[in-house]
Amino acid sequence: MKDSILTSKDLQPAAGNGLFDRRAFFRGGAALAATMSSYSLSESAAAEKLVDAPWMISGPEARGEVPAYGSPSKMETETVGILRRRSSGVIGQRRTPHHLLKGTVTPSGVHFYVGHAGLPNIDPDQHRLLIHGLVERPLIFTLDSLERYPMETRMAFVECGGNSAPFFSPEPIQATVQELHGMSSCSEWTGVMLSTLLEETGIDPRAKWYIPEGSESIAHTRSVPLYKGLDDAMIALYQNGERIRPEQGYPMRMLLPGFEGNMNVKWLRRIELTEIPGMTTGEVRSYADLLPNNDVLLFNFINEVKSFITQPSPVHWSLNKAGFYEISGIAYSGNGRISKVMVTADGGQSWAEAALNGPVLPKAFTRFRVPWRWDGGPAVLQSRAWDEAGNVQPTRAEILAWRGQSPTVPKVWGFPSHHYNGPTSWGITPSGEVSNVYV
Amino acid sequence: MKDSILTSKDLQPAAGNGLFDRRAFFRGGAALAATMSSYSLSESAAAEKLVDAPWMISGPEARGEVPAYGSPSKMETETVGILRRRSSGVIGQRRTPHHLLKGTVTPSGVHFYVGHAGLPNIDPDQHRLLIHGLVERPLIFTLDSLERYPMETRMAFVECGGNSAPFFSPEPIQATVQELHGMSSCSEWTGVMLSTLLEETGIDPRAKWYIPEGSESIAHTRSVPLYKGLDDAMIALYQNGERIRPEQGYPMRMLLPGFEGNMNVKWLRRIELTEIPGMTTGEVRSYADLLPNNDVLLFNFINEVKSFITQPSPVHWSLNKAGFYEISGIAYSGNGRISKVMVTADGGQSWAEAALNGPVLPKAFTRFRVPWRWDGGPAVLQSRAWDEAGNVQPTRAEILAWRGQSPTVPKVWGFPSHHYNGPTSWGITPSGEVSNVYV
Repeated sequence: MKDSILTSKDLQPAAGNGLFDRRAFFRGGAALAATMSSYSLSESAAAEKLVDAPWMISGPEARGEVPAYGSPSKMETETVGILRRRSSGVIGQRRTPHHLLKGTVTPSGVHFYVGHAGLPNIDPDQHRLLIHGLVERPLIFTLDSLERYPMETRMAFVECGGNSAPFFSPEPIQATVQELHGMSSCSEWTGVMLSTLLEETGIDPRAKWYIPEGSESIAHTRSVPLYKGLDDAMIALYQNGERIRPEQGYPMRMLLPGFEGNMNVKWLRRIELTEIPGMTTGEVRSYADLLPNNDVLLFNFINEVKSFITQPSPVHWSLNKAGFYEISGIAYSGNGRISKVMVTADGGQSWAEAALNGPVLPKAFTRFRVPWRWDGGPAVLQSRAWDEAGNVQPTRAEILAWRGQSPTVPKVWGFPSHHYNGPTSWGITPSGEVSNVYV
Repeated sequence: MKDSILTSKDLQPAAGNGLFDRRAFFRGGAALAATMSSYSLSESAAAEKLVDAPWMISGPEARGEVPAYGSPSKMETETVGILRRRSSGVIGQRRTPHHLLKGTVTPSGVHFYVGHAGLPNIDPDQHRLLIHGLVERPLIFTLDSLERYPMETRMAFVECGGNSAPFFSPEPIQATVQELHGMSSCSEWTGVMLSTLLEETGIDPRAKWYIPEGSESIAHTRSVPLYKGLDDAMIALYQNGERIRPEQGYPMRMLLPGFEGNMNVKWLRRIELTEIPGMTTGEVRSYADLLPNNDVLLFNFINEVKSFITQPSPVHWSLNKAGFYEISGIAYSGNGRISKVMVTADGGQSWAEAALNGPVLPKAFTRFRVPWRWDGGPAVLQSRAWDEAGNVQPTRAEILAWRGQSPTVPKVWGFPSHHYNGPTSWGITPSGEVSNVYV
């Protein structure tokens, strides 16, 4: 990008309401610097003398001790998951605080969680994985035996089919991006490809599906097409370098990059190859959707192309004065790489192309960024993403025409329907308040 | 890789002692499967019936609760940093357990740490960054103002100049890869490029260096050439998605990709542009090396190309029987991308090319892997890495000829010299013991 020619055009906003585009980052950001220097983001050193801070002159007893396994600063009290209890009392969800995160990796401590029966306390030495059903040789694997197989490492997002369901509401629900989109997270996963293990078990030619089963008390199951098992399905053993966390399926989970979260079965113990799908609760009830014509949408696997702006975003990002800001957000697609993200600051009248932070990886979070010179007037921010398979985020109207709209305003935590991947629009008032709006 | 032609040659080891090369992964690992199927890594399901595990039928009271900020499984007691106290009593080091990690991201909880005075308890709202000295406009930045600047996200390793010092010992020290190489870690960092802020302050033409200063009680300083500040130096605010951890400099650190760790000043509070280096303690004493000819090696910035095998590795990876294993390790270079890693199983007589897990990123950990069919005889494993700048790891003899050898066996924790980037060799006995050897 930095080799490109910088023209005077790059020194001007590329779209309405002060939005620059990715060319503003060319040539070391000269266009940005020219823009920002007209706003005082910093203070002249003459205005404030830098004195020794209290923590520099405190005694050793006031300092922190380095633990064998570290944690965030005690000051970071807000960077935590929002928890929701089920009617049984057990915590059923944790949502990721996207508005407080930057980059593309989700810290494992706040990776989203959905579950029905709490966390099984699994002893990894006793845990077994069985592959059986329509195979030539049913086999049992221990953690030790899996450690000897070839492994792969990849970034991949996982997203709950119920993420973003509040956007099916007829009125925009006022909530944070954590509440609205917080059931999507991205990690570096390492494990053994399922295809490697299926080479060992052999596959009966009648097999067309496989059914992974978890070892939590309800033994959650889903049916997965066999082609996915032979493609990029992974027995994930490590998350962000270390053993997978309890909330993500310790000691192993099914990772199906780009397929809805609950198919990525956690605490994995059995994989049965079958000729037909299992028609399990997860697929015929929990994640099946009634369409307006009374058809039922089944086996809707892929998390389609999606994006949302995390900064600024409601509640946590009140803008305190006109001037320069960076708009930043996340885009991803279950079909592959993100190819383009466009951003508007005037509710869709004009658009600027966002800069994508590389490397842009398939089926993983991509961070996009746009410089914005807010003039202090009303604005509506929205992002729209394309993927390399040629898909683009549909409009909200297109989704509702197909999927229907909730007759009443659902709760933030309700799941009236699944797989909303339309736009998210943040309205900005002249006083700098940010809210969820439909445009 | 998967498009390449698979030949019968790929079904045979590529180097002595049963070492396959990266072509074994071609065509979906057919060569590997052929190799592995002759060894029983798994058990026939007939041999062991899969029963409900105790954690599936336990009551809710025996299950784990999902926390707002999660932690590793309680079973993972070994995946922690090794701590070392200084003579003052304060913990001065934490080392990364490479032998228990997979992938390329180091979990933030076990990122290595070196420090002199414990962790300053910094209030981010009160923290300030001053840029002054040979600038046109000295400026002070708050965390809030930095949040409004354009940010970048990148993977980068940080390595202590004292990492791997035990290899200067005349006799190989028997210790884990955590003790020997554990002061190197890799994270995804997000922050504001220093060059962006220097566009705002302006630069006096006399400036050739800059001196970042930390806000721990000793106010650690180092001198950095200005060209690095205008290249890829970053004011890092986020680590693996969330606010940077206390051990890595909360709320901000200097990130100098590829430059030795202590120049990446933590708890950053001041940056002074200067004409000449500061000749600070860090550069003229702590990280200066006396050469055999009595010259002193100063300003030795770059962590040169390096690699080591993490699996198998001493103590934790005793091999329990002949058969198939995956050799896996880490390679990185302060000069850019890793271009090639070769692995030997016969102490250097023959070599096989390792598969590099993509994406291979500049100045970041690259995971390499080689399939290995151990015949149960003695073996010596070693890796050797090349980078895109054309550098290759020197032999240990080459390093010692230049840098000298410790006259006595140093302790694991001693720093007789710095920047060892020669080979690491693991000897395997027929009984499967793994030890550190010199070849």
